[in-house]
Formats: sequence, C-alpha cells, structure tokens
Amino acid sequence: MKLGRIWREGPDGDVARIVAVHPEEGRVVHLATAEGARLQRRGATTEAARRLSAALFPSSMAAAIALGTQFLEAAQAADDSAGVDASMSVDDVRWLAPLDPPVIRDSLTFPLHMKQFGERLGAGPPSAQFFKTPGYFKGSTGSVYGHDEDIPYPSFAEQIDYELELGYVVGTTGRNLTPDEAEQALFGLTIFNDFSARDIQGREMGMGMGPQKSKDFAYGIGPWITTIDEFPALDALSVRASVNGEELATGTTEGPIYSGAELIAYVSIADRLQPGDIIGSGTVGNGSALELGRHLRAGDVVELEVEGVGTLRSRFTATAEQYPWWPTEQADPFAAARS
Amino acid sequence: MKLGRIWREGPDGDVARIVAVHPEEGRVVHLATAEGARLQRRGATTEAARRLSAALFPSSMAAAIALGTQFLEAAQAADDSAGVDASMSVDDVRWLAPLDPPVIRDSLTFPLHMKQFGERLGAGPPSAQFFKTPGYFKGSTGSVYGHDEDIPYPSFAEQIDYELELGYVVGTTGRNLTPDEAEQALFGLTIFNDFSARDIQGREMGMGMGPQKSKDFAYGIGPWITTIDEFPALDALSVRASVNGEELATGTTEGPIYSGAELIAYVSIADRLQPGDIIGSGTVGNGSALELGRHLRAGDVVELEVEGVGTLRSRFTATAEQYPWWPTEQADPFAAARS
Repeated sequence: MKLGRIWREGPDGDVARIVAVHPEEGRVVHLATAEGARLQRRGATTEAARRLSAALFPSSMAAAIALGTQFLEAAQAADDSAGVDASMSVDDVRWLAPLDPPVIRDSLTFPLHMKQFGERLGAGPPSAQFFKTPGYFKGSTGSVYGHDEDIPYPSFAEQIDYELELGYVVGTTGRNLTPDEAEQALFGLTIFNDFSARDIQGREMGMGMGPQKSKDFAYGIGPWITTIDEFPALDALSVRASVNGEELATGTTEGPIYSGAELIAYVSIADRLQPGDIIGSGTVGNGSALELGRHLRAGDVVELEVEGVGTLRSRFTATAEQYPWWPTEQADPFAAARS
Repeated sequence: MKLGRIWREGPDGDVARIVAVHPEEGRVVHLATAEGARLQRRGATTEAARRLSAALFPSSMAAAIALGTQFLEAAQAADDSAGVDASMSVDDVRWLAPLDPPVIRDSLTFPLHMKQFGERLGAGPPSAQFFKTPGYFKGSTGSVYGHDEDIPYPSFAEQIDYELELGYVVGTTGRNLTPDEAEQALFGLTIFNDFSARDIQGREMGMGMGPQKSKDFAYGIGPWITTIDEFPALDALSVRASVNGEELATGTTEGPIYSGAELIAYVSIADRLQPGDIIGSGTVGNGSALELGRHLRAGDVVELEVEGVGTLRSRFTATAEQYPWWPTEQADPFAAARS
C-alpha cells in the first residue's frame, strides 16, 4: 500500500489529509472520506462516521502510524470500498510530506559515497569509527518539504547539493531492539533527500556538533510511503537521480556497512524509537552532485527515484532567500592558543 | 508563572496533566480540573466544561504552548480561581518532563566550559567557528527525563557526566527572526541537563555527525518551566550543581559567546522554530563533572539548580542497563589508506 498526505480545502482553510495512492491508475483515495462513507453504509450517522474516520485518519501521519495494525487495516478497508467521490486525479493533488516525523535521523554508510565525498573535499578516508558503530546525525523537523514543494534557496550558501537516500519509516515505539526486531518495527519506505550546503558543511564540521545550517534548511520526504510488505528485500533497490531532467546517476542500495535493520536497532539502544520516526539510509554511491563535481543552483529541479516507491521532485526557488540578521563575528580568546 | 506536568491516575490508566506550580506554598494546581470548575460556575455543563478545559490543557505541553496567549491567560485564570479540590501537595506528585519538545537543540557557548573541557580531554582550544556562528547539535526527543525520574545507567559507557544548562523554551513558530524577535518568541526557561558519555563522545566525534549514543541516552528537563516574564534578564542567573548532596559547582549564566536571543535567532534562519522547542544554552563554566576531574556512577543523584526556576533532580539506576545486541565491527576497506 502507498500512503501519502495532501492538502484539501476545508471551510476554515486547508487541511492535511491522508490518502492511499494508486500511481499506476493516476489517482489518490481520500481515506477519511472513504471510511466515513463506508461507516455510514454500515449504519453510522454522519456525525459519528466523521468522528471515527477523523480518529483513524488524522492530519498527522505519525499519529496515524501510532495506531499500529488498526491503521493499516482501516486504510485497506477504506481504500477497497472507496467510491468515485472519494477519489481524485494525481494531477489535481497538492502534496505535502507524507510524514511529520517526531525525529529525523540520517546515516552515512555506503562506502563508495564516503570515499568519493572525501576525495572531492580532500578530506581523506572516512573515520574508522564508521566500521565499529553506525554513524548518524539528527535533523530539524521544522524544515521538511514534500513532493513538488518549492524550497527556498539559502543565500548563505553557494554549493547546495542533494543526497539520494531511502527513508526508513518506523512503525512502533521501540527500545533496545535486535536487528530482527528492528525489521519488524519498520512501517515502510519513502525517499529521503538530505539536502546539503557543502561550503557550510566544511565550516560547521570543525565544531564537532554535527550539521546546523548545512543541513537544516531542507529535508525532502516523499512522494509517499510504500508499506514494508511491498518490498521482498531492501538491499538491492534501483535508485536514480536527475537534475533539470538530466540523469546524473543510477545505482542500487547494495553494500551498506550496516544494514537498515542494524542501523535502526542501533538507534534504539538506550534511546526510544517513536512511531513515524524517519531514519535516512545514508547516501548511496554517486548519490550526490558533489561526487560528480557539480552543485545545485537557484531554480534547479531535483528528482530522486527509488524502485518500489516512486519519484520525489523538489524545486529550489529561482531567487535566493535573504535573511534579516546574521551573527557577527565575536572576539576569540583562543586565537593565540590556536596559532 | 511556573508550569509543569505530572502523572494523574485515570479510569483507563495514568494520564499526563499540566499543572501550575507554587513551590513556595508546596502545592500544584491541576489546571484542567480548576478550569472545568470555573467554567461550570459560569454555567457550563460538566461535559462542555471538560471538553473546553481538555482543549486548553492537553497532555502535551507543546500543544498547549501552541495556543499562544490564550494558554497563558487561561492558565492564569484557572490558577487564580482554583479551589482546594484542584490542588495537590508537591510531596504527592509524580513529575514528568514539563515539555515534550518537537526538537531538542543544544548549544556550546560558554568559553570557560569550552576551555576546561578541551584541556581535560587534551583536545586543545575550541574551533574558531564557535566565534563566527553559534554551534549546536540536535538530540533525540525519545529519551527525555523529568524531575525525580530514574534514568537507566548505560552499560556501554563508564564516564557518564551531567551538563548544567538553561533550557530556552520556544513559544511560537518562527522563521528568520532577528534577536529582538527571538526574545519575543521565548515562552520561558527550564533547566536542561545534557547528560553525556565522555568516553563514547570522543569516539563518535571523529565521524563528524554530532553525538549519537554519547548524548541520546538521556536529556533531563524540568522540574517545570518558569514563564519568561519572571526574569528581568537571562545573563546573570545563579546556577549550582551537586552530586549525592555534595555541591560540586556554583556559577552564573554570564558571558556566553552568543546571547540566548542570538542563538535562537540563528536557529530560526532557513529553519522553523516550533512551539515547545527546547534549546539548551550550552554548559556554563564548571557546569560538568569532567571539568572537575570526576564522573557519575550508577546510582548517583544529580541536582541542578537555576535561579528563578528551581532544582532538577535526576537519579541513575543502581544497575547498568544491558543491551541484547551491539554492532559487530565490520571490514574496513579504508584501513590501509588511513595508516
């Protein structure tokens, strides 16, 4: 099953709604609408049908996923029973990110990407620690962008990049899981575009706190989530990246240092997974423009494709966003000690 | 006003409830209960009074803060009108973290802490970048602990530490704010204990992705939030840390590289603040045991005190938590290139 979120017009303004997506038929099904109609056919009043369908299919995908099996069963029943009035052409849809993740984590685990990344930046081979424990950083949930959403091109950077990744979507709460248990805790897969400002990343790296502005200006998630039952395996999916219609790279998800299940299990140690958490798989080899000696410019359109999910399209604004304030440099009492 | 969250017994199990705290009187006021009674005195039915008071005072503090001025005004009215039946002694309270933050960010900006930290670890002076833009990392919201909560002592580490910080609590959504606007966006202050595993931190640092297990096993937040109107200024608050009743350090919040308002404004650039976000001020000078040549052991009790807020007490379990799985070391294709 493919599950996304779209904007719908309501009497008090736009509301986010969960849909089942049928890409091959070019249509989406409004699940709350379909479920409301189904419940009424089973004798529910209009008011009661709306109450229950709103509880099953809230605006928040993370809140829906938190319902566990009940959500998936209800989505399937609503989708199966949906009439024409609960359907819409994908051409008329305004997408938003399929997910409002409690936490965004993102790994780095494909050796070819790590090697080429280091070579381009003259940074040498990656830390040996990546082969002892999975590495990942955490991102801001305040800058999530869905399919076809415009992303403000940040004026503080000149070397913007995309990163082509799977997004593992967590289905349950979980703590101290084994890899087998972590695999059972997977709700589905989406596409995760870990946009990066390469010139800023270099400066920020020295502080040892992970990325700030070099990553937190945009995380692309979408176009929808494909539930995990649709994937026989996760380790050999075909992937593809293009910019302005030009194919820049094709590849697969083979060969991570740690598997998705191991990564998710490691995340859960002494921490707590929450339903709807997204964990980026790490960029696949050739999965960034930097590796190919390129950068993104204002106005560029990036398309990332993952087998079994679809294509996530992101467009940067033609004009860079300006900021009313930027920190001024402060007196540095360590300058002498450092030189 | 001081606002916290406690557990209350309900017919279907424990529920998290927002309270007004009166430390000097040793009591808390159940705001939903007080508001329900107030509404009934004004003619509301029991059912309608419960509906509105639950919407004003939900389980989630972030959701309550998202109501803006309406939340604070309702809290004040409910607290002012509260009768004895809406009050409880602080001695009978089971606290949880006052806040369920959408995002946890934590800064590093007090030069004395940075200097002593670097000296203890033999790491040399801090990066010059800290004096050009504020540095901060992001933490997992899955491992937040409130006042008096037991924290599992992680068995993967031996050098556990506390970090004494202010927690800036964000009151509104905000993007691209100036420092003046950021100050207006502040809801209040709490105490933020950025627990750290120093032995793990060193290993993880080399991956350049910020902390993983060295921080995400515990963030202490509490005991409550003091609203920002109670602080004439934020830059000269007295603070204090003790372990097992022994005072280890006293200090103040004077002298950060970047002020709280500048830090919050910087966070908002090209990103989006969300109501209830917490931003750690950075550890104050002498605000960690490492700086004093010490570490925390299983069973230790840490108390952090901030003027105008109160004392946040955290207790590590006497027995270290064991994990059913830990990653095995993988073949490292870069080993030769690195040596």
